[in-house]
Amino acid sequence: MKAFLLFSLLLTSSLFAAPPEDEQQLKALYNTALTQGKAYAWLRHLTTQIGARLSGTVQAEQAVAYTQRELEALGLDRVWLQPVHVPKWVRGTPEFAYMETQPGHTTSITIAALGGSVATPQGGLKASVIEVQGIEDLEKLGKDTIAGKIVFYNRPMDPTQINTFAAYANGVDQRYNGAAQAAKYGAVGVLVRSLNLRLDDYPHTGAMQYENTPLANRIPAAAISTQGAELLSATLRLQPNVKFYFRQSCRQLPEVTSYNVIGEIRGSHYPDEIIVVGAHLDSWDLGEGAHNNGAGCVQSMEVLRLFRRLGYTPKRTLRVVLFANGMQGLSGARRYAERAKAMNERHVFALESDAGGFRPSGFYVEGAEKHLRHLHPWKSYFAPYGVHLFAKGYGGANISLLQNGALVLAGLRTASQRYFDYHYAETDTFASINPRELQLGAATMAALVYFVDRYGLGS
Amino acid sequence: MKAFLLFSLLLTSSLFAAPPEDEQQLKALYNTALTQGKAYAWLRHLTTQIGARLSGTVQAEQAVAYTQRELEALGLDRVWLQPVHVPKWVRGTPEFAYMETQPGHTTSITIAALGGSVATPQGGLKASVIEVQGIEDLEKLGKDTIAGKIVFYNRPMDPTQINTFAAYANGVDQRYNGAAQAAKYGAVGVLVRSLNLRLDDYPHTGAMQYENTPLANRIPAAAISTQGAELLSATLRLQPNVKFYFRQSCRQLPEVTSYNVIGEIRGSHYPDEIIVVGAHLDSWDLGEGAHNNGAGCVQSMEVLRLFRRLGYTPKRTLRVVLFANGMQGLSGARRYAERAKAMNERHVFALESDAGGFRPSGFYVEGAEKHLRHLHPWKSYFAPYGVHLFAKGYGGANISLLQNGALVLAGLRTASQRYFDYHYAETDTFASINPRELQLGAATMAALVYFVDRYGLGS
Repeated sequence: MKAFLLFSLLLTSSLFAAPPEDEQQLKALYNTALTQGKAYAWLRHLTTQIGARLSGTVQAEQAVAYTQRELEALGLDRVWLQPVHVPKWVRGTPEFAYMETQPGHTTSITIAALGGSVATPQGGLKASVIEVQGIEDLEKLGKDTIAGKIVFYNRPMDPTQINTFAAYANGVDQRYNGAAQAAKYGAVGVLVRSLNLRLDDYPHTGAMQYENTPLANRIPAAAISTQGAELLSATLRLQPNVKFYFRQSCRQLPEVTSYNVIGEIRGSHYPDEIIVVGAHLDSWDLGEGAHNNGAGCVQSMEVLRLFRRLGYTPKRTLRVVLFANGMQGLSGARRYAERAKAMNERHVFALESDAGGFRPSGFYVEGAEKHLRHLHPWKSYFAPYGVHLFAKGYGGANISLLQNGALVLAGLRTASQRYFDYHYAETDTFASINPRELQLGAATMAALVYFVDRYGLGS
Repeated sequence: MKAFLLFSLLLTSSLFAAPPEDEQQLKALYNTALTQGKAYAWLRHLTTQIGARLSGTVQAEQAVAYTQRELEALGLDRVWLQPVHVPKWVRGTPEFAYMETQPGHTTSITIAALGGSVATPQGGLKASVIEVQGIEDLEKLGKDTIAGKIVFYNRPMDPTQINTFAAYANGVDQRYNGAAQAAKYGAVGVLVRSLNLRLDDYPHTGAMQYENTPLANRIPAAAISTQGAELLSATLRLQPNVKFYFRQSCRQLPEVTSYNVIGEIRGSHYPDEIIVVGAHLDSWDLGEGAHNNGAGCVQSMEVLRLFRRLGYTPKRTLRVVLFANGMQGLSGARRYAERAKAMNERHVFALESDAGGFRPSGFYVEGAEKHLRHLHPWKSYFAPYGVHLFAKGYGGANISLLQNGALVLAGLRTASQRYFDYHYAETDTFASINPRELQLGAATMAALVYFVDRYGLGS
């Protein structure tokens, strides 16, 4: 009987053989993230206690201090701040806008100044509206039609794109370059349909720029909600001479100093090879900067915390970088890349999280083929966690400045259907974050870092 | 010059060769669902104009009438109702509960009677509490410890399960069988930790049953929110003699008649081969029954609508079935299966949507291997839509009663991290639905139906 029992035990243990070490390490990373994760608690503080973190604001500086303190509490080998000049654009008093179908008959419309826009004249601006589907329409319409009017860019994001980021990329020129282009034709202002796939009442701000437009010719630009855009468009069809009034007092103040927040665990074997995980710490001023991009910051911090918590010392130096000013010109990313070059630092891999705190689907990766092929054998380890995507694509704006041909860049990708419901809008709040989705993102980043650290990328 | 132009055109058209027909059909299904879908509008009515649809209520009957009318408006070949006996359990006046640490010192706790539970005595029930981690603890504790007490089942869902449905399956015995088992040991009532992976204040109801417990020995059972469970557990550690009071007046009334709502498009080539898409139309009474399972109903209806809208007549008969009473014993599904058998109907494929209106990840399929292997070549067509999962697994409760060995059952699967935040709770509202995710689910169902209809399953 005893012999039989022993035999049974042997059989059992051979059936349930210990899984390979990599599999176990991934399981440990995911389990720890899901049961003892801190990203969600960090994000609660960053979004509900600090709030939106527009460059140049007190909140942005509070976020620097908070994340520095939290990284120090992790017992990393080194935590430091890197000074960065950042723009200070302020929204001023709340915007105000309405449509006027005839004198005295007005309907108010919610707008939000685009980031970087100039103000309207102090008493506001009232003009006729010309609706276009994109910048290319301006030339067709010509100066005679456009001069003195407000140009209303109303091309919606393409709803048939399954990848909503692709739909965004096809629409964003209206917001980014729309004012500079319309000014050339004598327009007096610009309204841009919010880059949002939903019909709702929230204007979505975002960066715009005036290129080489002389100061005196710069015209104010504002986002209009998707519902507002539908209403204005329908009204224009019935009554082409409708007037639009808006007032905004936003302005650009002199640059101020902010900081990249950096922490690192020194590599045990190859301390001179640096792996970066990071995200931009600033946000737009609407909402709480939760999906954009508090999520990416706390996930990046969580990667280092997970390694520490599991007592796992990476072979290579693992660094988290929370970039200043990801929203208005990437001066934090530029500063980091310049310093890295000046110090002769050797970066081998950089991973950015900037696709919201949603369920991770995988990664976009960019780099030389000889490096990328090292990723292939790792893919199957991610399948049990629902992570399938390993595709060539853009890694991320902040890490892109590090690229010198020698390193691999990667961007965490997410189930993105909801992303643009929140992007740069009042809706981007902590309440819209699911803790498991957020923590799964952190674990997925940590898992890829684990493989890169352990096996290298052949560089 | 003309010859050159012609050559260029030929070259261009050969470079942009028309994609294969199947690819085009899938694209058409997805595009139509995303740009001209109706599922989201239907769901708005079902959830915000009708509301929760507990079997036996006016709302459940309104949902029957509404969906019948909407199916008729699609111009299907036939729409009909199939009478079904359904239970009528009513919650009665709102539950009331508190913890009492000493006479006069009370803390109120939100609870919700489990579906099918008996009431407490009219004045409520106050008793000591014994916390357990599962039914198996009862025997260890024994009658002496349990008799006269309220048994508090507090085993949480396992957060390390990536598939949250697996975590649910491991926890649900506490809710379903907990009262029947505790009654055997003389317990006077049962509290069950809500099957929810989040810490929040919402109790989640759900089905329970008394097995063969004699009527006189049945004890009331209620769900307590995850936060409430944590509080009660922490209090019990400090003060094991804490008393718990609760009052509920729910009761079982005589059965009433409801209906399965059925619509079909008659097959052009094989009208006797039936493909079913379906979902249960009833819901629990908390919330609005949005993810559970208004979503599955409107997605199933949308499948037929998409085919109609594209002018595509299936070769096989395509039927939508909205099952009565999916929540309290599946009498609608049983009725449908019995009638199908009595009428000698030949079902070849049945697809159920009951995993919430989230981003579709793919399908679980069950059936004979000789049928399932026909699915393999279709998988790659789904990849552009982010649909990767084709795994053997449980198709669904309502369609399972159709299984006779000859047909394939499939269940739509979703990105499930958020599902149990809403499941059977007040939080299950229309506002928690993302229109694109909902419509992508419908398109994904339609795409699989398209392949099954076109190529068959070798049966």
